[in-house]
Amino acid sequence: MPDTHPRANGERVLADLNALRALGTYKSGVHKPTFSEPHRQSLDWLVQKLPEAGLAGAIDGIGNIVGTSSKPGPKLLVGSHLESQNYAGWLDGPLGVVYALEAARVLNADHSVKGAVEVAAWCDEEGHFGSFLGSRSYVGQVTEAEIDAARDRTNGRAMRDALSDMGLAGRPRITVEPGRHVGYVEAHIEQGDTLESGKLAIGVVTSIVGIWQYRITFIGEQNHAGTTRMAVRKDAGLALAKFCVAIDERFPAACGPRTVWTTGRITLDPGAPSIIPGGAEMLFQIRDDNPAVIARLEELLRTMAAEASAKGPCTANVEKIRTGAPAMMNADIQDAIEAASKELAGGRFIRMPSGAGHDAQMLATIMPAGMLFVPSIGGISHHWTENTADADIVTGAQIFVDACRRILNR
Amino acid sequence: MPDTHPRANGERVLADLNALRALGTYKSGVHKPTFSEPHRQSLDWLVQKLPEAGLAGAIDGIGNIVGTSSKPGPKLLVGSHLESQNYAGWLDGPLGVVYALEAARVLNADHSVKGAVEVAAWCDEEGHFGSFLGSRSYVGQVTEAEIDAARDRTNGRAMRDALSDMGLAGRPRITVEPGRHVGYVEAHIEQGDTLESGKLAIGVVTSIVGIWQYRITFIGEQNHAGTTRMAVRKDAGLALAKFCVAIDERFPAACGPRTVWTTGRITLDPGAPSIIPGGAEMLFQIRDDNPAVIARLEELLRTMAAEASAKGPCTANVEKIRTGAPAMMNADIQDAIEAASKELAGGRFIRMPSGAGHDAQMLATIMPAGMLFVPSIGGISHHWTENTADADIVTGAQIFVDACRRILNR
Repeated sequence: MPDTHPRANGERVLADLNALRALGTYKSGVHKPTFSEPHRQSLDWLVQKLPEAGLAGAIDGIGNIVGTSSKPGPKLLVGSHLESQNYAGWLDGPLGVVYALEAARVLNADHSVKGAVEVAAWCDEEGHFGSFLGSRSYVGQVTEAEIDAARDRTNGRAMRDALSDMGLAGRPRITVEPGRHVGYVEAHIEQGDTLESGKLAIGVVTSIVGIWQYRITFIGEQNHAGTTRMAVRKDAGLALAKFCVAIDERFPAACGPRTVWTTGRITLDPGAPSIIPGGAEMLFQIRDDNPAVIARLEELLRTMAAEASAKGPCTANVEKIRTGAPAMMNADIQDAIEAASKELAGGRFIRMPSGAGHDAQMLATIMPAGMLFVPSIGGISHHWTENTADADIVTGAQIFVDACRRILNR
Repeated sequence: MPDTHPRANGERVLADLNALRALGTYKSGVHKPTFSEPHRQSLDWLVQKLPEAGLAGAIDGIGNIVGTSSKPGPKLLVGSHLESQNYAGWLDGPLGVVYALEAARVLNADHSVKGAVEVAAWCDEEGHFGSFLGSRSYVGQVTEAEIDAARDRTNGRAMRDALSDMGLAGRPRITVEPGRHVGYVEAHIEQGDTLESGKLAIGVVTSIVGIWQYRITFIGEQNHAGTTRMAVRKDAGLALAKFCVAIDERFPAACGPRTVWTTGRITLDPGAPSIIPGGAEMLFQIRDDNPAVIARLEELLRTMAAEASAKGPCTANVEKIRTGAPAMMNADIQDAIEAASKELAGGRFIRMPSGAGHDAQMLATIMPAGMLFVPSIGGISHHWTENTADADIVTGAQIFVDACRRILNR
């Protein structure tokens, strides 16, 4: 039986991805932080592409784009994000947006498909200004006060100033229209090596792990690095280093099989070569899809801080700054992705949780949501060497489009 | 026998110090980094004060001031620095400059004194742009290329740009006139608690410890903090923390009785909460007045780095970025300070090494040099709470002026 279903155009997908890579190019990746010039250009690029897919849309008051269709029938929301981590890869985000655009181009014009795909680009998934600000705004969880307080983590620029520079000050924010969508689907690179090492083409995501984030601070006594004897020092930096090593020693006995934890940033105060640091701070993160494991590890963290403070000479304090509940992916959407993978990738798929956070976890709070992964070469991401083989990108696009068709035609 | 010697005016010294504190005030201290607006104002203040002491001088091409006298006879160079560490104390530097100014005002006009005191303010003793750039320039150790390459350690601003903004671009740099001076004397706060805990008024400095500085870097593999399993991570930040703890464990057995070591700054690359650091760097410093001890500790440091690299998963590298030989203070100048202390402080002095680096160690490479310390309350410095009792400031000024008189009249 000849294949009569609408299919993705692989060359067009690769061309679009390379067009986005040309905005803010850094080595073989991109440097495209939220509200940077190349990010603005990427958003404009998408707005200009929407009519090709029968969609209309503009950038809203928080930097989101949601392209809507006037075609009757069910609507499926699809998308990802366009900004990048600093000096990072070209596919983390844009892959999902371009797949979404391709699905809309292919399916919305096809009369055998019921309804339409609507394309979203969620702003600041990478957290330059906050935590999933774009998708959280769309689902109604972001207040004006949160935007007032948000600052760029890299340079301290106020989000209000950035929005104003983007010409977005005063624009309304688009929020969900309850009942409009049958679900949300997002494609993304895996950012790990499960697919590559298993020679697989597709990951059917079952859940997205929760991310709990902590600020751990150490208070000692700032003093002169030449005149203060070792015996009387209260070196907050050394206290921090000891705490990091203690985490490394004690967490393995308390964690779950898939738990990961990371100290991503360390700051000594004042951070000068000739001054004993009087303060030190680390940003610490735990990820797991089991809240009970997180609760156990957080308790351990607080116990360790209390022990360190009691022992001295510095005090340690653990502050939770972000709680992210794990999100379960919708079973019907998983089945649609699986069926498409069986047909178009010879069954080279696996069901797997996502260790990374994604906008889909925010959408999952208000509608059925699902995700598919394509392989990452060497498992590398959040780095400019991040890449996926062209053949895998094309296969992923075909499966994504077919899964969307299956969901709409159910 | 009535005291007929010229004496310092304590009230004038305190008034001058408070006038300098009013430029760049931060809490009870100052924030006066090199080439900041309050630093420029402080340099202008000194230039305007020089004529009161019969001196003429201007800011030179690196931000130094050397006020010269046309009085015949021997010349004694005295001074310190006017900029501060970031958000630090009011006396670290200005005390020595104001004492120097006071000595010139009192002694240069007095016909019982042979020759004259000449006042210097050395730029950037606190190392915002380099290492003792001002005093090293004066003794002939700073090349134009070093200035070309120098950047503000806090904000990355090029030194050339800062000099240009100060109106100093193209000005010649003053360098030593060989044979002009019989010696150099500098007063400073102790920055430790030896004098306070011994209820002493004056420290007669015998030597200035050497400072050896190292950049220790760790190379791992940058990756995603959610998708990369703990077992396969190469976390450069964790490698750094382990190294800090190992230093804390192994240095005490290899150090000397007065050795101190400090990790003043830690930087993780890229330093984002959701990225496993692929690189990490620490600025590490060792101080001692015995080069053999330093050599032993540096060897240990390199051994530890080799062990860490061999063990994996990250590599460690030790790079020496600054070598500061210890400087011995001149015996005759020590005797002059001691004699003044006996006469004016009832013998409440002690001979002691300086754990901190000072411009005097640079001047000591070309002429006899000496230093005196006054007490620091609580031993605190490099912090805005740094302070010295008014009575101790006045006593110190009197002894400094008298020591200068004794040196000139030898």
